[in-house]
Amino acid sequence: MSMLILDLLGTFFFAVSGSLLAARKQFDVVGSLLLASLVGLGGGVTRDVIIGEGVPNAFEQPVYLVPPVLAMLLVATRIIHDTRLRRTLLLFDAGGLALFCTSGTLIAYEAGLNPVAAALLGVTSAVGGGVMRDVVANETPQLFNPRGVYAIPAMLGAFFTVGALELGWFSTWVGIGIAAAVFTLRGLSLRFGWHVPLAGGGTVRGGEAR
Amino acid sequence: MSMLILDLLGTFFFAVSGSLLAARKQFDVVGSLLLASLVGLGGGVTRDVIIGEGVPNAFEQPVYLVPPVLAMLLVATRIIHDTRLRRTLLLFDAGGLALFCTSGTLIAYEAGLNPVAAALLGVTSAVGGGVMRDVVANETPQLFNPRGVYAIPAMLGAFFTVGALELGWFSTWVGIGIAAAVFTLRGLSLRFGWHVPLAGGGTVRGGEAR
Amino acid sequence: MSMLILDLLGTFFFAVSGSLLAARKQFDVVGSLLLASLVGLGGGVTRDVIIGEGVPNAFEQPVYLVPPVLAMLLVATRIIHDTRLRRTLLLFDAGGLALFCTSGTLIAYEAGLNPVAAALLGVTSAVGGGVMRDVVANETPQLFNPRGVYAIPAMLGAFFTVGALELGWFSTWVGIGIAAAVFTLRGLSLRFGWHVPLAGGGTVRGGEAR
Repeated sequence: MSMLILDLLGTFFFAVSGSLLAARKQFDVVGSLLLASLVGLGGGVTRDVIIGEGVPNAFEQPVYLVPPVLAMLLVATRIIHDTRLRRTLLLFDAGGLALFCTSGTLIAYEAGLNPVAAALLGVTSAVGGGVMRDVVANETPQLFNPRGVYAIPAMLGAFFTVGALELGWFSTWVGIGIAAAVFTLRGLSLRFGWHVPLAGGGTVRGGEAR
Repeated sequence: MSMLILDLLGTFFFAVSGSLLAARKQFDVVGSLLLASLVGLGGGVTRDVIIGEGVPNAFEQPVYLVPPVLAMLLVATRIIHDTRLRRTLLLFDAGGLALFCTSGTLIAYEAGLNPVAAALLGVTSAVGGGVMRDVVANETPQLFNPRGVYAIPAMLGAFFTVGALELGWFSTWVGIGIAAAVFTLRGLSLRFGWHVPLAGGGTVRGGEAR
Repeated sequence: MSMLILDLLGTFFFAVSGSLLAARKQFDVVGSLLLASLVGLGGGVTRDVIIGEGVPNAFEQPVYLVPPVLAMLLVATRIIHDTRLRRTLLLFDAGGLALFCTSGTLIAYEAGLNPVAAALLGVTSAVGGGVMRDVVANETPQLFNPRGVYAIPAMLGAFFTVGALELGWFSTWVGIGIAAAVFTLRGLSLRFGWHVPLAGGGTVRGGEAR
C-alpha cells in the first residue's frame, strides 16, 4: 500500500517533468497530458510488459491517470513553472528517477524475477520513461548528457534495494531512504558538474552544460 | 469479420501516411515498406503486447502485411502522392486515427479489459503508430502539433465506443459512424486551425502552421 | 548451445556499434554502456515480448550483460575506434544484423510461431536494435539511409533460415553460412553504393553518402 503511494509519487514527479518539457516545446495542453502520461507511465508499462504477468498496473488501476492530469493542470496554470536555468524540470525528473529505481526493483522482485533481472528492470523503469519523453519530444535524452551522472544513482538505488530485499531488511522506510540518497546524489552531481570519462576516452570539459 | 475489414482499412490508411512521409524524407522503397509497416502495425502490436494474450494479430495473420505492401506500391508509382500543402498525408493519417480508436477499443474490450483500460488502449493504438512513424523519421510527432486537435477526437471516439459497448448498442455500423465522426472532427480542426491552450498557458497564434 | 554463442556474438557486434556511436556523439562511458545494451538487447527483447513466453532471455540470463560491458571497455580504451570514414561502426552493425536475422528467426520458430511470423520476428530483432540506437541518439536510422541496402539482406537471411528449418536442413553451420552471406551482401552494397528506387519514385544519385 505505502509502496503504491511511492510509485504514484514517482509517477507525479516524472509527469511534471513531461508537462514542463511540453511547455518549453510549445505543445498544447493535450500534448502536455500525453507527454506527462508517457514519461510517468512509460517506464512502468515497459517493466510490466517485460515481466509479462497480465495487464500493466497503469492500465488496470485508473488511479495512475491522476498524476498526469494533475501535472498538466499545475503547469498550465503556471503553479509549477520552469526557471530560466531549467532547474525545475531537472528536479522533478530526479524525484521520479529516485522513486522508480526503488519501486521498480521491488515490483520486479515480488513478481519472482531473479535479483539481477529485478535490479535491471528497476533501472529500466527508472530511466525508460525519461528516455521516451526526450525521444518523442525530439531531444537527445537527458540520460546521455555527460554533465552530471544520471544512470549511476539509479543503478546504485536498484542495487541497494535488491540487496536489502535479499537480506530481508527491506521496508517502506528503507525504500524511502534509498530514494532520498539517489535523489541527493543526482542533485549533487548536477550542482557540482560531476562527470565520468567519455565513451571514446578523454573527459568532458568541466563547466560545460548542454 | 467486418471489424477485421475496418482494422485492415485503418492499417492501410496509416500505411499510406508512412509511405508518403518516406517519400518526403527521400527514403527508398524498402524504407517506405518498413515505415508503412511500423505506423500501420505499431499501434496495434503495442496494444496486443499490453493486453498480453498471445502473439499480436499483425504477426499471426499474414493478411496484415497486405496494406503496407499496397501503400508502398501506390506511393512508389505516384498513384497516391503528397500535395504541396502536405494535405494527402494528413488525410490518410486522420483515416487511420478514426478507424483505430474504434477498432482498438473494441479489441481491448473483447479481450476482457475494464472499460477505462479498453478506452485507454484504443487511444494508445490510434496515436501510437503515428508517434512511432514520426519519431523514427526524426520529426516532432504530429500528435504534438498545436495546430488542429489530434488526440481529442481519438479520445472521444474511444469514449463513445466503450459507452456503446457497455450499453449493448455497439454494432459495426455504430463503429463506422463513430469513426466517420472522428475523421470529420479531425478534418475540421485542420481546416479551421482549431487549437486548445498551450501546455504552459497562453494560446498559439491562429494562422501558424508547423 | 552453439546458437546461444552466435546470439551473444551478434549482441557483441551490435553493442560495439552502440558504443562507437556514443563516442561519436560525445556521450560518457555510462551512456556508452546503456546505448550498447539498448542496441544489443533491444531487438531481442522486443522479439521475446512479442512471442510472449515469459521473461526475455536478456533479463533471465545475466551472461547477456557481458557483451555490452565488453563493448564499452573496448571503445573507452580505444582498442576499437571509428575510422574517419565511419566504416568501423557500419561493419560491426552489419555483423549484428547478419547474426540476428538468423538467430532471431530460429528462436521465434522454436517458440512455435508460424513460418511467416518467425521470419518477420527475425527481421524485427535484426533491425529493431539498430533503429532504437539511432532514434535514441537522435539520428535518422541507418535503416532508412538510401545508400546501400540494409533490410533486404536481413529479409533474405530470415527467409532462407525459415526455409531451411521447414525443410529440416537447418544446422548451426547452415546458420553461420546464411549469416556470412547476409554480412557479405550488406558489405558489398555499402562498398559499391547499391540502391533501390526511392519511396516516391526516382532513384538516389549514385555517389551520395549520408
